Amino acid sequence: MNPSAPQPERPSPSRRRFIKHGIALGAALVAGRVAPAHAQSPPVPDDPSRVVGGPMLPYGERSPFEGALREKGPPSMPDEWGGNFTPLGEMLGTITPSDLHYEVCRGGIPTIDPKKHRLLIHGMVDRPLILTIDEIRRLPSTSRILFLECAGNTRTEWGAPLAPSVQFTHGLTSCTEWTGVALSLLLREAGARKNASWIVAEGADATGNERSIPMAKAMDDVLVAYGQNGEALRPGNGYPLRLIVPGWEGNINTKWLRRIKVVDSPYMTRMESPDHTSLMPDGKARQFLFVMEAKSVITFPSGAQRLPGPGFYEIKGLAWSGRGLVRRVEISVDGGKTWRDAKLQAPVLRFAHARFRLDWRWDGREAVLQSRCTDETGYVQPTLAELVKVRGVNSIYHNNAIQSWKIAADGSVHNVHV
Amino acid sequence: MNPSAPQPERPSPSRRRFIKHGIALGAALVAGRVAPAHAQSPPVPDDPSRVVGGPMLPYGERSPFEGALREKGPPSMPDEWGGNFTPLGEMLGTITPSDLHYEVCRGGIPTIDPKKHRLLIHGMVDRPLILTIDEIRRLPSTSRILFLECAGNTRTEWGAPLAPSVQFTHGLTSCTEWTGVALSLLLREAGARKNASWIVAEGADATGNERSIPMAKAMDDVLVAYGQNGEALRPGNGYPLRLIVPGWEGNINTKWLRRIKVVDSPYMTRMESPDHTSLMPDGKARQFLFVMEAKSVITFPSGAQRLPGPGFYEIKGLAWSGRGLVRRVEISVDGGKTWRDAKLQAPVLRFAHARFRLDWRWDGREAVLQSRCTDETGYVQPTLAELVKVRGVNSIYHNNAIQSWKIAADGSVHNVHV
Repeated sequence: MNPSAPQPERPSPSRRRFIKHGIALGAALVAGRVAPAHAQSPPVPDDPSRVVGGPMLPYGERSPFEGALREKGPPSMPDEWGGNFTPLGEMLGTITPSDLHYEVCRGGIPTIDPKKHRLLIHGMVDRPLILTIDEIRRLPSTSRILFLECAGNTRTEWGAPLAPSVQFTHGLTSCTEWTGVALSLLLREAGARKNASWIVAEGADATGNERSIPMAKAMDDVLVAYGQNGEALRPGNGYPLRLIVPGWEGNINTKWLRRIKVVDSPYMTRMESPDHTSLMPDGKARQFLFVMEAKSVITFPSGAQRLPGPGFYEIKGLAWSGRGLVRRVEISVDGGKTWRDAKLQAPVLRFAHARFRLDWRWDGREAVLQSRCTDETGYVQPTLAELVKVRGVNSIYHNNAIQSWKIAADGSVHNVHV
Repeated sequence: MNPSAPQPERPSPSRRRFIKHGIALGAALVAGRVAPAHAQSPPVPDDPSRVVGGPMLPYGERSPFEGALREKGPPSMPDEWGGNFTPLGEMLGTITPSDLHYEVCRGGIPTIDPKKHRLLIHGMVDRPLILTIDEIRRLPSTSRILFLECAGNTRTEWGAPLAPSVQFTHGLTSCTEWTGVALSLLLREAGARKNASWIVAEGADATGNERSIPMAKAMDDVLVAYGQNGEALRPGNGYPLRLIVPGWEGNINTKWLRRIKVVDSPYMTRMESPDHTSLMPDGKARQFLFVMEAKSVITFPSGAQRLPGPGFYEIKGLAWSGRGLVRRVEISVDGGKTWRDAKLQAPVLRFAHARFRLDWRWDGREAVLQSRCTDETGYVQPTLAELVKVRGVNSIYHNNAIQSWKIAADGSVHNVHV
């Protein structure tokens, strides 16, 4: 029996049983790739066991049949500006490979020689520091699996649903293991003064991307990171140094970090005024929002995917909260009328993506899928209507509303607001 | 003040304080990359903030200044045969990037079209199954961060210490997040019979790599994995399907998985007889060793690295156990006479690499560094002498002895047996 032979047209014994018994595995394990196909088709042996395989390589490559890619938006902007979205619909588990971690740039990705790069810590300190990368890498270190999310993630969803896929509605969040030095260690070493209440972090790119951070957070859990998923940071994620501010909006996680100034008030920089502020219905703007509130999204089935037919599916998605642990994710398949608890993949880590899953049998009729996250503070992810009622529609940033995916009778999946 | 400017030759204010106070950060934060340098030197701007940076890319690349690579051994063998060692001395945190995950091949890396690949489950079952990748990816899934370790990892250390670096003494272990389907689900679906006590797994490469696995383990925590660190498996790690057998020797984690036969006894295949058996002093061979016992190794400072001078260093390393959680790692800097507890990076996960760290001040005199792991069963990693006393020196496989790194007065680090 040759398992590499083409599958016969008639139902195999296994498929017959799925149909007959109609249990967990479902009636519709039919062929057909669910996710968008990027596959090339290089020449391959009919039976790979009959030939010697290829050589082992010093640095890995994907199979030529795999092609998940980040995509940049908005399309009107040059390659140095905008967001580079993680293909969440094709991601598995909770770790995002560094090659596909989202990026947001306003002045391109600088090329930095780590031997020339310095980190300056100055301002209201007794002992200004200038540190090389080698010096920083010799200090006591720590590692942590953490999500990042751009404050502008899901900004398309304030108005009519335009983004076709979860990559473009939610792809400005990713989750990797970061390694670095506690910022508190460096601030103590520099002798930050008692009356200092903020720091201002600055990157070495063309924008500087200055951001003010309260001293309490800076002394709590902020990292000066040089490592990501076991290696050095990728250039688009801040090589050789990035400030990692767990649970806070992506932009404040300063890439290409080169200066930290210890100060006694926020600096009202471009990136915190007018950028990263939210205009409210009364004409005032919220500023220094910082924390990414509890949020979740179904990544399968999601927009632009297609279900090949009725039957068993595992609904899968990601949940996260900038206020701590994800405690619960519920799923609705009827547009929010009824909810069922999803399974959370253990271990659920504070400030990391949590993978949730729920077995589901699609009956072939129209369905609207939603997920709703509750974090350890008891905060429940709002509907879009609830969010708009409080915030209006001029916020741009911090849209953490429940996402809806409509499955049409033909199996196609669409972004809808219900 | 330009932090990108070259560091002055005279001690900076920060360095003076480290010297004066002699506290944690130590007296010797001098310049000089500790790890082996692979850096190229592309043209870079003197001040990257003065120019627009490069474009965002669909799929990431490392900085041109980073060059950690796997290395293949033994050098006498063709590229399709042997081990491809993870550069553990340059790895950070606990997650190994898929590009640098170790590989062992005996017939090269097959090229497999996932659309043509099938998984056959047959033998002592009521309903043989033939599954496509699409079908497998639709089933209930799970993800888990797990180490793999080749049974032959550290085989160089039975005799005189020849391997110069931790890459070649211990680099046949790595740790990634695997995603797939529980094998127990597939075996239940196939209707594995009550009197079936083993399975035989077979890969689609030129070797087949058949291995027998007891049914109790197969029904416990084994995965049929299609995902690694968020993406599809890499070709060298089994694309498109790999059996993942938590805590057991790497070879039994069958790559390119294409057949599982349910049987009532082990099949005594080439890969389990004579391969992966250990010849004992009495002339008998141990067989079906399976579990990778508790083990640890210091990755910094380690062989072929060099300490630039006396002062503060963080000793770093990895520990793991195929029997469950790592409970404790102790470090000796005097060749095993005295021991101190290292810090374990939280969360410590069952069957995953645990990162340990310990602050240390090197006084500039000769030192021998060792780490010793204890797992949740109470098992303590043995010295090489203890291991050899029981096992002799013909075992080849399953060498989990304490590793010693000698630091010479000039800061050079060497592999020694003490």
